[in-house]
Amino acid sequence: MGQIANTNAQYLSQKLGELGIDVFFHSVVGDNRERLLACLLIAASRSDLILLTGGLGPTQDDITKEVVAEFLQRTLVVDPNGMKRIEQFFQQRNIPMPENNIRQAQVIDGAYVLPNDHGLALGDIITYDKQMYILLPGPPFEMQPMFENYVIPYLRQHSTSTLYSRILRFIGIGESKLVTELADLIDHQSDPTIAPYAKASEVTLRISTKAKSEDEANVKMKAVIDEIYARVGKYIYGEGDKGIDEVVFEELRSRNVTLSCAESCTGGLISQQLTQYPGASQFFKGSIICYTNEAKGTLLQISPNTLDQFGAVSEETAAEMAVNVRKLLQTDWAISVTGVAGPDPSEGKPIGLVYVGIANEQEVKVLKFQFAGTRKTIQIAAMKHALFALMKRIKKGENV
Amino acid sequence: MGQIANTNAQYLSQKLGELGIDVFFHSVVGDNRERLLACLLIAASRSDLILLTGGLGPTQDDITKEVVAEFLQRTLVVDPNGMKRIEQFFQQRNIPMPENNIRQAQVIDGAYVLPNDHGLALGDIITYDKQMYILLPGPPFEMQPMFENYVIPYLRQHSTSTLYSRILRFIGIGESKLVTELADLIDHQSDPTIAPYAKASEVTLRISTKAKSEDEANVKMKAVIDEIYARVGKYIYGEGDKGIDEVVFEELRSRNVTLSCAESCTGGLISQQLTQYPGASQFFKGSIICYTNEAKGTLLQISPNTLDQFGAVSEETAAEMAVNVRKLLQTDWAISVTGVAGPDPSEGKPIGLVYVGIANEQEVKVLKFQFAGTRKTIQIAAMKHALFALMKRIKKGENV
Repeated sequence: MGQIANTNAQYLSQKLGELGIDVFFHSVVGDNRERLLACLLIAASRSDLILLTGGLGPTQDDITKEVVAEFLQRTLVVDPNGMKRIEQFFQQRNIPMPENNIRQAQVIDGAYVLPNDHGLALGDIITYDKQMYILLPGPPFEMQPMFENYVIPYLRQHSTSTLYSRILRFIGIGESKLVTELADLIDHQSDPTIAPYAKASEVTLRISTKAKSEDEANVKMKAVIDEIYARVGKYIYGEGDKGIDEVVFEELRSRNVTLSCAESCTGGLISQQLTQYPGASQFFKGSIICYTNEAKGTLLQISPNTLDQFGAVSEETAAEMAVNVRKLLQTDWAISVTGVAGPDPSEGKPIGLVYVGIANEQEVKVLKFQFAGTRKTIQIAAMKHALFALMKRIKKGENV
Repeated sequence: MGQIANTNAQYLSQKLGELGIDVFFHSVVGDNRERLLACLLIAASRSDLILLTGGLGPTQDDITKEVVAEFLQRTLVVDPNGMKRIEQFFQQRNIPMPENNIRQAQVIDGAYVLPNDHGLALGDIITYDKQMYILLPGPPFEMQPMFENYVIPYLRQHSTSTLYSRILRFIGIGESKLVTELADLIDHQSDPTIAPYAKASEVTLRISTKAKSEDEANVKMKAVIDEIYARVGKYIYGEGDKGIDEVVFEELRSRNVTLSCAESCTGGLISQQLTQYPGASQFFKGSIICYTNEAKGTLLQISPNTLDQFGAVSEETAAEMAVNVRKLLQTDWAISVTGVAGPDPSEGKPIGLVYVGIANEQEVKVLKFQFAGTRKTIQIAAMKHALFALMKRIKKGENV
């Protein structure tokens, strides 16, 4: 019905790619026995590994396990550990267990059982003929940890060598410039491999190698990663899955320093990104969103002279915004952002021109950026570059 | 590789559902001739209508059109209008046209040509044997308008009657309560049909009927829609595709009234939602994000007495926040939000308790909500209910 996007397919493709497993097909089919059987027949004829998500729940619609068992000519059996967890779940809540919930503890006879740490429905792995079938629950918050904690170790254990990867995350350098800087490394790559990927205002680099263990992989990747850090390390804000917002969040919280923001063209995006995580109140005191010159005057005491002489989108205004919000909220650090998000130029300044101010008690520094793209991409670029600039100042006392 | 989620499949399933066309399968396959041919064979064996997205661009990877032509034993021909547009595109930019771009003007011989108003690659519709094939470009900003403006009219024209729908959007009433209120209508439905769907902190109701024209459909649906408005109209914030943020954005802009916000537990979400649209500066002056009691005092002059006596999460604090931010920024309207987003209770107040204040010059009204869910869902619920409360006050002078 188009009610949700298939983010499970995206997640699994990404994770399987990281393991060195080529994903050739995705198929989506409704909770219908005949059509699901037809899809299984097609899958078995063309793939070695078949992952299924969804349809493991307690209701009549949830038929995946039954249909796969039928297809493989196996029966379903109740897993005692899974059953115990379901019984405990209902006992603790003082609710009688509906008969249907027994189905969530069923697995295909002979399967390797995948525990569900975030729900009740068990997953299974079963090998039949030349294919391996992996059944996973549909809700991403159940499926992803099950895949991460139980499926990946199983796959690694059942193959002689698998792919290991490290992901470096860059802000402030475009994909083409990054590729140019690393041209010789990329051209001569064979093992480890180096794969760049550009996404919203940042670039990631995946370094991968096949190995028998993570330790062995790390040894094989060390030289090339050291060389990448030596050449373009100043653009790297982190490694792995965490975005710049989460990296900065953890940096601020662990250092026990406080932050305030003065946002103009980002309209609250920086504050919203940081406050999405629990515990934000430990470091985040507040922000002023000053979308008009009037608000910049009233709320932030930006001097009329500065606004008249240099304009709202200027180095001088950005500097005053950061200095003043920091004083008002008495924080260790402050970020300011003022710019032209578009779609029209403002005060004769071009679309995409953005100034970011970073202030602490000693000094304020202002960075000038010229971003390209739509209103949305400019706002995101401004947010990411501002957070990275703050992180660099805080972390290393580096010039930004 | 898992770099993007398949939002095209979601969009098309939704739109096809609205037309009354059952979507039974999605298949995803890479830019590989053999595997794409195999998928086409499967599709032709099980479906009447086959939509393909992507692979219509100018590069060597873009093989969809060639492979479908091969599958249907047709040739490719250059569409003169499409060719003219491509030539003009490069002339206007003073760039020589790369030879490859001719491919974007090619269509399958005998196809109905779908113009591309947002890009260069043409789409096609071709009927072969008993199947209809529709080829669409991959980028959603090209694909969606092409589907909306050219494919839907084509499909309607080529069937004797198709499905027409109206979507009513609700905030403040849960799915089960809505279904109870409309139980007799839903139980006796046959034509038009009524289908509820719950999404993040809101519910939509799709009313659908098969008809020969939109006018005929509207006549058929009028009685039931009038009845729904009579019973639960106070929870309806709009119809169609627009979310509450966009509805409020347009309401404020068209009425030429100004807004400011004081956000605590939403951390900037309301401001960020409204400033994502161009033209926000016409009505949005700014916000104060006061994440700590200290910030509520410093920036918003919330009286220490209020905070001491009632706490930061209270009717009294919400009222002062709205009144004070409105005065500070001299706006016609102000929204305030203070609550407990979780994951832990705060000041002895439960997770999900949220107060929303709506102020104009005459008065401030405060609404109390108890939301359930995660930190993220509570923040979204607070944002949506706050915007809806503002809209009702502005629009109808209703009590909120």
